[in-house]
Amino acid sequence: MVVVNDIALTMSGRLRRTPFSKGVLAAGVKGYTVYNHTLLATVFHSLQEDYRHLKSFVQIWDVSCQRQVAVQGTDATHLVQLLTPRDLSRIAPKQCCYIPVVDEQGKMLNDPVALKHSDDHWWLSLADSDLLFWVKGLAVGRNIQARVYEPDIAPLAVQGPKADELMEHVFGEKIHAVKFFRFETFSFLDIPIVISRSGYSKQGGFEVFVPGIDIAMPLWNALLEAGKSLNVRVGCPNLIERIEGGLLSYGNDIGNENSPLESGLGRYCNLSSKVPCMGHDALIEEALCGPSRQIRPLAIDGPVAPVCDRPWSIKFQGKYAGKVTSATWSPDFDTNVAIAMVEMEFAEVDTRLEVEVPDGVRPAAVRSSFWL
Amino acid sequence: MVVVNDIALTMSGRLRRTPFSKGVLAAGVKGYTVYNHTLLATVFHSLQEDYRHLKSFVQIWDVSCQRQVAVQGTDATHLVQLLTPRDLSRIAPKQCCYIPVVDEQGKMLNDPVALKHSDDHWWLSLADSDLLFWVKGLAVGRNIQARVYEPDIAPLAVQGPKADELMEHVFGEKIHAVKFFRFETFSFLDIPIVISRSGYSKQGGFEVFVPGIDIAMPLWNALLEAGKSLNVRVGCPNLIERIEGGLLSYGNDIGNENSPLESGLGRYCNLSSKVPCMGHDALIEEALCGPSRQIRPLAIDGPVAPVCDRPWSIKFQGKYAGKVTSATWSPDFDTNVAIAMVEMEFAEVDTRLEVEVPDGVRPAAVRSSFWL
Repeated sequence: MVVVNDIALTMSGRLRRTPFSKGVLAAGVKGYTVYNHTLLATVFHSLQEDYRHLKSFVQIWDVSCQRQVAVQGTDATHLVQLLTPRDLSRIAPKQCCYIPVVDEQGKMLNDPVALKHSDDHWWLSLADSDLLFWVKGLAVGRNIQARVYEPDIAPLAVQGPKADELMEHVFGEKIHAVKFFRFETFSFLDIPIVISRSGYSKQGGFEVFVPGIDIAMPLWNALLEAGKSLNVRVGCPNLIERIEGGLLSYGNDIGNENSPLESGLGRYCNLSSKVPCMGHDALIEEALCGPSRQIRPLAIDGPVAPVCDRPWSIKFQGKYAGKVTSATWSPDFDTNVAIAMVEMEFAEVDTRLEVEVPDGVRPAAVRSSFWL
Repeated sequence: MVVVNDIALTMSGRLRRTPFSKGVLAAGVKGYTVYNHTLLATVFHSLQEDYRHLKSFVQIWDVSCQRQVAVQGTDATHLVQLLTPRDLSRIAPKQCCYIPVVDEQGKMLNDPVALKHSDDHWWLSLADSDLLFWVKGLAVGRNIQARVYEPDIAPLAVQGPKADELMEHVFGEKIHAVKFFRFETFSFLDIPIVISRSGYSKQGGFEVFVPGIDIAMPLWNALLEAGKSLNVRVGCPNLIERIEGGLLSYGNDIGNENSPLESGLGRYCNLSSKVPCMGHDALIEEALCGPSRQIRPLAIDGPVAPVCDRPWSIKFQGKYAGKVTSATWSPDFDTNVAIAMVEMEFAEVDTRLEVEVPDGVRPAAVRSSFWL
């Protein structure tokens, strides 16, 4: 079975390597994608073998492509609040929060995890778009007193059921005290490192915000060494696991044409007037009528291509009903798991739809939840 | 000889295909890069064979990755002028102009070709960054009355010494009347199409701004058909030819850490007070002392890797003197041609430097001009 649809990528300086690229290569990476102008591995053994391992053991991932936008200054919180409809007033220091970032029309520009260091200092850990430009443009245009920049931080994810155990070996027992979506500062080779309990999988784990290149490979090697007895491997975000878990991919499942309401992120939208998000008015207007389409988990029957590498149309009795944006075979759930943007008319649970896959039409059904 | 350093690219919807992707595949593309979240071919036969053909005949290039940012409205020209230190007051309708776009610190965000439709309507034909976000952020932040969006335009380049002849076959004799860096509206299948005499090569030719997907492949096929006797081929921007010609690549040769003065674009910087560019003050300050480094053509002796796919350090008597950002072998000039960012101290013509290539050190010399 062909696991991924590979074509040749010509390297250039414009596609940034990372402080861990040597480690990724040494681990036998088989494919890359480009994410925030940076290389991101997509597969090591096979999608399914990587998936099985991720769900059973622990992996370290080079996710340096999750570039950070730092917002610093007395108006930092004000500026971050302008970006998102999520109410940030209750976010504590050392807390992470997933924030839809929208433009003035209430359309998605990115969906980062924001790390609040203090009222004066935030990091936005980015999905695939140059959000720095929007935040800087807004700050400069509005004359907001905040420094907005991309710090030299290379995130490393440690994901999987054995992540706590592995991290304890390297960072000590206090790693267990880090709660979900909180972060603390640890140290490695006497250099302070921010570590959060977060990551782009549902298997548990951490993200390690590695500052600069000097400690990158030493830390990488220390984790691999410490994890030998835990069957640690170098890995990467896994397509099967992320679809099962309903983790959206900006650029695949949602984009600048979608609102957070369409993206199924309504729970992060506080549309009261005390949240001065740029897209406030547009989102209120949309909320009044309800979005016209929305993200749904979809189970697709029958054989389909191993990955959905371009949108597949969805039909209901011949009528356009939406598009599948991510799909693949799930060994654990014995079905094709998919994320789809479905027109509201056809988005109710159990609605039977038809998906136009590259070599035919397959029956599919809207599910009530992702596969968890 | 290995021509390009290829690794496997895993496709996904996030890496946009284009209206011409089928044509590119059918022509036997051997490698891609990702540019503005979009596929861009890098090689068809070999770098050198593509180069020879481009300099001898005519090629059609899918450069849909040159996404357009449209700026429309009564304040459109005001907004575009805020983006760039280039004085736009003398740019006429139907004129193209290359503009460095800088942030409030005078650092490069992109280097598009701007197409002026009218005072109320511009297109920016982008290099590789989400400039849309900066322009929108600035417009929204400053409350400027302009609509800023990415129209559904897929540029197709027709490049090479036979470009005029080929274009005449499809668009008629009046194509010859289009002057350099000017554009006119033509029609194909009764659909109006903007065509400019421009493009990312020094061989002459046109860029055809194809609106929407319906006429894309018909036009592609019409050009291939009409060009049979001219030995037309499907091609792509060629690394050798663009380095010889000194065509900068944003993300490779210059980036957000560089000013236009460092980028050798001082001739596009009008620092008088009548040009209200956001980076005005920062650029004036830099101009007073002069930039501390600058883009230079560099000839490198001896065998080097076929492409410079990450910066190579430059030394002068052991001291850091800059970095090579693009380099390859030029058959026509019988040397390794390179673009480098050289510290001013070492940037004088004929300065002898040493370049740290992957497998050793090579002598190099600063040239007075690119290879034209």
